[in-house]
Amino acid sequence: MREVIVLGAGMTQFGNSDLSQKEMFAQAAIEALEDGQVKARDLQALFIGNVLGGFEEGQINIAPFLASEIGMPMNAPATRFEGACASATVAIRHGVLLVASGVYDLVMVGGTERTTIMGTALATRTFAMGSHSEYERFAGITFPAVFGMAAHLYAHKYGIPLDQLKRSMALVAVKNHHNGTLNPLAHFRKEITVDTVLEGPMIADPLQLYDCCPFSDGAAALVIGAAEKFRAHVSKPITVAGVGQGSAGAIYAHRDITRVRARETSIKEAYRQAGIGPDDVDVCELHDCFTIAEIMAVEGLGFFEFGQGAAAVDRGDTALDGKIPINPSGGLKAKGHPIGATGAAQTYEIVKQLRGECGDRQVEGAKIGVVDTLGGDFSTLCNLVLRRN
Amino acid sequence: MREVIVLGAGMTQFGNSDLSQKEMFAQAAIEALEDGQVKARDLQALFIGNVLGGFEEGQINIAPFLASEIGMPMNAPATRFEGACASATVAIRHGVLLVASGVYDLVMVGGTERTTIMGTALATRTFAMGSHSEYERFAGITFPAVFGMAAHLYAHKYGIPLDQLKRSMALVAVKNHHNGTLNPLAHFRKEITVDTVLEGPMIADPLQLYDCCPFSDGAAALVIGAAEKFRAHVSKPITVAGVGQGSAGAIYAHRDITRVRARETSIKEAYRQAGIGPDDVDVCELHDCFTIAEIMAVEGLGFFEFGQGAAAVDRGDTALDGKIPINPSGGLKAKGHPIGATGAAQTYEIVKQLRGECGDRQVEGAKIGVVDTLGGDFSTLCNLVLRRN
Repeated sequence: MREVIVLGAGMTQFGNSDLSQKEMFAQAAIEALEDGQVKARDLQALFIGNVLGGFEEGQINIAPFLASEIGMPMNAPATRFEGACASATVAIRHGVLLVASGVYDLVMVGGTERTTIMGTALATRTFAMGSHSEYERFAGITFPAVFGMAAHLYAHKYGIPLDQLKRSMALVAVKNHHNGTLNPLAHFRKEITVDTVLEGPMIADPLQLYDCCPFSDGAAALVIGAAEKFRAHVSKPITVAGVGQGSAGAIYAHRDITRVRARETSIKEAYRQAGIGPDDVDVCELHDCFTIAEIMAVEGLGFFEFGQGAAAVDRGDTALDGKIPINPSGGLKAKGHPIGATGAAQTYEIVKQLRGECGDRQVEGAKIGVVDTLGGDFSTLCNLVLRRN
Repeated sequence: MREVIVLGAGMTQFGNSDLSQKEMFAQAAIEALEDGQVKARDLQALFIGNVLGGFEEGQINIAPFLASEIGMPMNAPATRFEGACASATVAIRHGVLLVASGVYDLVMVGGTERTTIMGTALATRTFAMGSHSEYERFAGITFPAVFGMAAHLYAHKYGIPLDQLKRSMALVAVKNHHNGTLNPLAHFRKEITVDTVLEGPMIADPLQLYDCCPFSDGAAALVIGAAEKFRAHVSKPITVAGVGQGSAGAIYAHRDITRVRARETSIKEAYRQAGIGPDDVDVCELHDCFTIAEIMAVEGLGFFEFGQGAAAVDRGDTALDGKIPINPSGGLKAKGHPIGATGAAQTYEIVKQLRGECGDRQVEGAKIGVVDTLGGDFSTLCNLVLRRN
């Protein structure tokens, strides 16, 4: 397989947008093209994540229209991937694999989503379609409920008093909001405190409002290509050193929802391809859809032992200047979560971090970064390992 | 790239089903596994087409649940592809490419869809989301309208009196309904006449009811693998000799909607990979969503000169015993059209034809077959070339 590099990256402001999904994507894509000094007419294919375009804007089959919107060659293949919140990362993985295998030399990957048009209540119910429609959703399960249960189970399993765990969870939110203040493209750019979280409205016990990420509008895009053809083309090429993807059935089939086995399989494969282990990782953007999700993810990715994720947050190990900085962008929690675009935005952040272009939120000397994106209630998981050359 | 073979194929009855999308898929998948003498636990990944599961059953992110349903290994990647009616063929193409490139040795590909739950009127409006949501749909365009306009343009462009073209279109429906009577899995199994078509209700001038394919429920699945590992595993392996995919923007950007340029690009690539030309093709399943679509497709695939497709139908060249039998399964017109499953069902038919297992509808001595699937109003196109070894 050939080495695959990221030539360019682009991302819109996250938040509430008046732009359509196509317009947002075009904005991110044009930035990525300019960043990579590539012309749209030279792109050979498009791989795009989009989850609920049909519900949001009455648009399915969006990929060819996005390709057309940015001036890609008439007839170039354009493909939509949908794996709930992991959609864009799944799209990127397939783009990477098809460049690595020689099918394409230069492609665009990314995601776009306009969630706020629904309003939060309808969006929550609509997003719940990512869980199993026969066994889960009709039982009243929404994603906040699933992660609320996971938090209770986590506290029970590891013998952590719930109030103590809630404080650790609040610290995740405080950290990610802090990071968000340093990211001009973040949805939320305000500091919060532990009290902000613990005094917030209850959403799904023990998750309170500030334990939950928002719904956002946004898009992100990357130009990737074969290193053998394009390495000299850009000054700071970033290599996609490993990719992984995993799946799981409905949550009733999970023995223990505090461990996402699909993640463990996926990241293991990505590490293997990259020839690294978790200790080699300098920075990580992971799926903090809820604060407990970040605590579970830092364990699943191998950064801390199982049951030690909350303590790691307490110690500040996941802060910008910690042992392994997690979600320097602000994460889904503060940067925002336009579901089908999230994986592409995570990848954008890692690319910028590895290039050293992140200003006040820069993780000093970062050479290896990991992307981690979860779709549904643990049913789709996708990882990327990126490396600075 | 490695040679990719089809080990097994399965397909449900098409029509109105009481089964869920997952249950239908499981039925097709288990048949494909038994046909290929493969265990679900040996599958490494799933590539699935599904278009409107969110609207039909409140289910997005369906791929991991399908993988779980059939007993695939926990954590194996499962990916949903959506490119309107071409979804399954796009899924199959990606599965083929990733086996060919060595990423996987053995995978399942397919599609599932439950359209009839919506009723025809709502389904037509919902499917129209496959056209451009800003430029087309709000102008009142639905797919029958687009193909109605294409029929008028076709008649005008080639100087064919509309009544004459309508008769040729009716002959497409008569042929495909006849073929459907020979297919036990077809949605419609009754002979019709030219008068049946011409006396039917008007849908979108000049398309009458029998010019239009139905909405159907159904699923189809195939097991594909690397020839170097599995050729000896099955008695009649069929090679996927070429794949192609093309896209196009909104129809306002097309110079001439009687020619689908994305198809011409896609099939050219598939023929190139297979090292063949259209004259080498023995049997074809193509996207006859409307009768005029079949006439356009036989030209775009290179079987007849542009403007000669209608005359070819008149001569019987596309009948089961004609020069190039088209849609021996009954096509979308009679076999039925469960949108996200259609490409997989077309591939199922070609596999069965090349194996010589099609009974009364068998195309004698067929060695090379083509799959052609169109998504949206000419915006996604995917082709496969299959060959008997």
